[in-house]
Order: sequence, then structure tokens, then C-alpha cells
Amino acid sequence: MSADPVFPASPGAAAPSTAGTGTGDLLQVMRDGRPRTRAELVELTGLARSTVKARVDALLATGLLAPAGAQASTGGRPPTRFAFNPGSRLVLAADVGATHARAALTDLDAQVLLERSAELDVAAGPDVVLDWLVRTGHDLLAESGRSAGEVVGVGIGLPGPVEHDSGRPVNPPIMPGWDGFDVPGYVSERLAGPVLVDNDVNIMALGEHTAAYPDVEHLVFVKVATGIGAGIISGGRLHRGAQGAAGDLGHVLAPHAGDVPCRCGNTGCLEAIASGAAVAAALREQGLDVAGSRDVVRLARAGDVPTIQALRQAGRDLGEVLATVVSMLNPSVIVLGGVLPTASESLVAGVREVVYGRSLPLATGSLQIVASRTGEHAAVTGAAAMVVQHVLAPEQVDASLANGGTRTG
Amino acid sequence: MSADPVFPASPGAAAPSTAGTGTGDLLQVMRDGRPRTRAELVELTGLARSTVKARVDALLATGLLAPAGAQASTGGRPPTRFAFNPGSRLVLAADVGATHARAALTDLDAQVLLERSAELDVAAGPDVVLDWLVRTGHDLLAESGRSAGEVVGVGIGLPGPVEHDSGRPVNPPIMPGWDGFDVPGYVSERLAGPVLVDNDVNIMALGEHTAAYPDVEHLVFVKVATGIGAGIISGGRLHRGAQGAAGDLGHVLAPHAGDVPCRCGNTGCLEAIASGAAVAAALREQGLDVAGSRDVVRLARAGDVPTIQALRQAGRDLGEVLATVVSMLNPSVIVLGGVLPTASESLVAGVREVVYGRSLPLATGSLQIVASRTGEHAAVTGAAAMVVQHVLAPEQVDASLANGGTRTG
Repeated sequence: MSADPVFPASPGAAAPSTAGTGTGDLLQVMRDGRPRTRAELVELTGLARSTVKARVDALLATGLLAPAGAQASTGGRPPTRFAFNPGSRLVLAADVGATHARAALTDLDAQVLLERSAELDVAAGPDVVLDWLVRTGHDLLAESGRSAGEVVGVGIGLPGPVEHDSGRPVNPPIMPGWDGFDVPGYVSERLAGPVLVDNDVNIMALGEHTAAYPDVEHLVFVKVATGIGAGIISGGRLHRGAQGAAGDLGHVLAPHAGDVPCRCGNTGCLEAIASGAAVAAALREQGLDVAGSRDVVRLARAGDVPTIQALRQAGRDLGEVLATVVSMLNPSVIVLGGVLPTASESLVAGVREVVYGRSLPLATGSLQIVASRTGEHAAVTGAAAMVVQHVLAPEQVDASLANGGTRTG
Repeated sequence: MSADPVFPASPGAAAPSTAGTGTGDLLQVMRDGRPRTRAELVELTGLARSTVKARVDALLATGLLAPAGAQASTGGRPPTRFAFNPGSRLVLAADVGATHARAALTDLDAQVLLERSAELDVAAGPDVVLDWLVRTGHDLLAESGRSAGEVVGVGIGLPGPVEHDSGRPVNPPIMPGWDGFDVPGYVSERLAGPVLVDNDVNIMALGEHTAAYPDVEHLVFVKVATGIGAGIISGGRLHRGAQGAAGDLGHVLAPHAGDVPCRCGNTGCLEAIASGAAVAAALREQGLDVAGSRDVVRLARAGDVPTIQALRQAGRDLGEVLATVVSMLNPSVIVLGGVLPTASESLVAGVREVVYGRSLPLATGSLQIVASRTGEHAAVTGAAAMVVQHVLAPEQVDASLANGGTRTG
């Protein structure tokens, strides 16, 4: 993957004189989007003038930097400024849920340019789902008028545990046919660039962090939908854990769950009492006509009192577990995402009630507990951010430039 | 602090020709302790031969690198090899507990060279405790025959919450007189170099990680003594959280604690049922003569059955909470430290029993749950590692070299 020139020089551009080593670091400096002159970069990095010139030329040749107009001058010829050009390349990002899928083209700031979604059952198996993704990727490219060569990579979120390094699902409970499937291998035979895969909650956490809280160091994203899961940002980075299994909030013991059986085979799990499926089951016992999470959302939006009470209680039960998470991790922000928190403020209020009552003052003094701002776009934004983090990492940029111009795909 | 030349050139050594930028990065490469030639460093870093020569010369002048004998040669004059020289400087590390204190001189690998401990009540206040530390630091230096100028910094662990950036305790429950006290300010008037402060459990986690598990990415260290706390290593780095309050395991709700009152003012806290103080209280109710944690340790070592049963149950109660931590963080290793786990394997066994029964197979498949290997040295080792991480960070080394030779202290 590292030998693949993801950033070949644009046709007709001058070949960089010193490609490779150190150019990726210079690009990192420019990722904040601020236009700078070569002289400002010399000042900022302490590099020699000739080195900065060679690296800027290499990045201009790829299009990753572009001229950004002239700076106000104190006399003489105004120096030229350059800025990071997020529109120079594309990412194909996909969010695969239990019964839906969404694909989007984004720029290098993980901003969605075009998207499509479909009703699609993940249980139909990897070839059906991934073929839809490949086809939709080509459709979106055609619609955008851009070429496949502009896509730097593909990011995919899946609704189950994924071994991030290999991109293979690991015993995913609701994904028959996917266990151990080589998702990157299958997709990269059909679409160019690296293919990165992670579970949907991790990429939602990454998406919310990228789009809404880029400067927050410690954030916990909790998805409350048919199931429950969490994604953890620690020190600005996704905490995946030793086997990529971190954030499994759904199957921890909920203090007041008693012996309620869970689909995982254990009893007393948080998911068995506070998920969309559990709330739906509780409302059915009260005689309401509720099939699943979507009906819960519909009833909550219609102001149905038993539904709103059930969501408040689900929030309290979730809060009991999140209080432990707050004490352990001391995050600045807890984001509640997935369909249930969007249905009503009651669930978020229930979480707040318990967490602020339970955790120590030092950890809750400036803690925010909020509903997701990115909403249904959290996952595709995160899938794109995951790809951008990978391909714009200094060593990847350097390796790509050192191989510049040989790409055929 | 950054303007202070922590690494002045040795007296009589040639002044570095190009001090500063980039030399710290080269030192990072050498931190693994392997001897290398200049040519090997050119190969490894991609830097120009002249740049490597200048940086190696700068580091040789400080003593941080030292000649390491000749490489086996293929003919001609054997090239000279250099290696990181951890013995070239000293760190003063201190571990302040509720009723004891320990001070140590270590090298730049956080290896303890000399140490002293004393019975000392933290409630005696910061001037009494810190004066002991300063005096003991000077005594250890005198005993070692080394000079104060060789000490690159002071690391201190305190038994309560600390705002790491300022080094000030924040509402510490067992430390009257310490709240908001400027520990670094007080100590740095009396000892040279930067002074870094953190809570004891964070530095124990750092110490255990540095000494026993340097390659483990995700580790949770749990201290079980009179109180209970945790330190979290995420992605190889200490996770301190937004207010430095992460790892507060003692005051999370324990599923089976009921309404037991806790010293924090809340009820049902883990510390109220599974700490040394709680185990001692439970044994007193059974009629045993147990004042605190030390008596619990003494009885357990003597094979007292009620004590061992009580430790097993404390382990199970701790395990209920750690199962949630395992599901959330997916660590490779949980280390149980502090006095109770060293007293008997029963506590560790109780933790294992519950965690392996409760957490999902993916997260427990290769999880180790073990007693601390560094034992009573965890804290001083961690305090030293904290200082070394700070002063050998590339930007600190560069800043120090750029100011080389101006230090008077």
C-alpha cells in the first residue's frame, strides 16, 4: 500500500526535484488551511529556504497545495501564498448499518460532496453489500464529473466488531457471512486506493470529533439505536484497544438490570434494558404497537407519554454505566448519537440526571452531555476522516511522492 | 523552563557546531540503547552525512551519547559506534503516600540507583513533606558522589488529585494544607531542573508500563490499598483526562455495594466495599483485631482464612467494575498493585473470576490480569519516567542545546 503513489503529480506539472522525505511533515503544517508564503514556512519550520522551496514545489505538483492569492505587501513584488487544497482529491466513504447503507464522496476535509443511501440488509452478505458500495461509488463519481484517479481511498463502517489492521469482521452477531471476510481485498479489486474498515461506532466517534469537536482531547461517543456501543477519543485519537474491541458498552453489567437475558447470551447487560430494542419490548408489554427503534422514534416525536417516560428511564440506566465511564476517562464531552437520542431530549436528560448525581465534581464540573450534532452523517464523515488520517500521514505522503508518476490505476 | 539549558555541554567539550533543531529527534532514535555508527544513522534517518555528524557531535558534547566500542569491521579502520548513555544524568524521583515517603535517584532509563524512605504523614502539610524531599535529595546526591548539576529534573507522586499542568493538588481528601499548593514552585526554589507532579496512581501506571510492559499499548494499573484508584495507559501514553481526574475507580458505583456509605459522601462506591479500609472494617465486624490495610496484609500472609475469604470477595467486587473497564478499553494487561494484591493471590483470583465470566470473549481472549511486578518501586520508577519523557522530548532537547553553555545552576 505504501508503495502505491496515491498522489501522483498532475499531468504536465514539473516533477518534484526532491520528492519524499520531509514533504509530508510540511503538508501537516499546512493542514490547518491557513495560506502561507515560502518565507513564512521557513520561519515556522526552521528548514532551509531551498528545502522549503523543493517541498512546496512537490506539493504544488500534486495539487495538495494551491496558490492562495497574494499577501498584502510592504512594497516590491507581492510574495505568493499557498494553502492546503482539500478539494484536490476525493474519498469514498460508506456507512453500512443493519438495514441501510449510505455512500458519500467527500473532500480531504471529510466534507460530504455527494451522497446516496439505500435500504439494504447487511445479512444479505458481503458481496451483495460491497457490490452495492462499488456500484454506488462509480455512480457518484460519474455524477460528480470527477475521475476514479482522484479518489485517494475508501473508508467503510460496519455494524459489528472489526479487526482494524486487517479490515476483517470478527464474529459479528448480526452479519451472517461476514466473519473473517477480507473486506479490503474484495473492495480494492474494484476500486483504487487503500481500503480502511472499522466498526460503525468508532467511525461515528471519529466523525463527530472531526466535524464538531476537532479541538477536544477526550470525547466519548455513545450510539443508542437497536443496539448500544461507544467510540472513545483519547488524547485526540481513537482508542481502539488491544483487539479493536474497545467501546463495547452494550454488554456491560447495568446496575439495575437484574437478570434480564441479553441476545449475547449473558444476563443483566445494558443493551437488554436501555437499547431501542429493549425500549420497544417494554412498550409492547404496555400494549403499544411497537415493532422496533423506528416506532419508538415515531411515538416519541408524536409526544406519546409512555414512550417518553421509557426513554427517560433508558437514559437513567445508560447514565449509571456512563457515570463509571466518566470517572474512569474524565472526558470533556459525551455525545449521544444514533436514532434514540434524536427522537427526544428525554433520553439525554435521563443520562445527565444520573451522571451529574453520581460522578465526582472534578470530573463533571465542565463536562458536556449532548446529542450528536452530525446526526446521520456522523458515520460517513468519520469513514472519510479515517482515510484522510491515513493517506495524509507524513510517511504515506513521503512514500507516495518517492514513487510519483508511476501509478497506472 | 524550555529556555533552561538542561543539557549544557560538559566542561572542556567542544561546543556543538549546529545546536538545536533536529538533534532531539536523533536522540529519540538512539533511546533504544543500540550502538550505531554515523553511517548507520545516515541510513536510518535519511539525513545528510554532515547533519548527522553535527547532531552526534552535539549529543556527544552533552554526554547523552557516548562512544560504545568499535564495530566488527570488514577491513580498514573500524567505524566508531555511539550509544545512548542513560547514566550521564540523574533524576530525583519521589513517592509521597498517606503515611510514608520514598525518594530515589535514578538514571535516564528510570532505573533506581539509590533510595531512602521514611514514615511521614502527608497531613503534616506541604512544607514538612517537601522539605524532607529536598533534604533527602541532597543527601542522596552526596552519598552518590554526583553533583546537583547532573539532575535533569524532579518527579513527584502525591496521594490525591493533581492538576498535572500546574502541579497543584485539587481538593485532595487526605492532604490538608495541600489544596492548590504550588508544589513545583516550592521545590524548584530549592532544587534545579523542572519539577513535575502527578497523582500516585498515574505514576505507578507509568512506572509499571516503563519497567515491565514497555511494548504494551493498552494497560490499566489498579492500586488497591487503603483506597482504590487506577491509571490508564492508552496507545502507549498516560490517559489523564480533561481535568486530570481519569482513573477514579474508587468512587464508581459497585453493582453489589447496596447503600454502604463512602467517605466521599456518596453511597455504594467500590472503595466502600473492596478497599483495604473496607476489608479491615469487615474483619473487625467478625471480631478480628484489624486496624487497617497493614493488618490485613499481615493476616493474609499468615494464612488467616477469614482474611483470605474477604480478599477474594474484594477481588470479585473489584472485578465487577473492572469488567466494565475491560469492555470499554480492551486493555492487554490489567496490573493489580498497592499492598493488598501483594498480600495474597486471592484478590487477583477474585478479579479474574468475575472479569473472565463477564466481559466479551474478544476482549478477554488474550487479556492478562496480574499482580504488579515493580511492587513498591512502581511509583518512584514512574515519577522518574515522567521526568525523562519530558526532558528528553525532542523539542526540550533542541531548546536546551540552543541555549547550551549559559546555565549557571
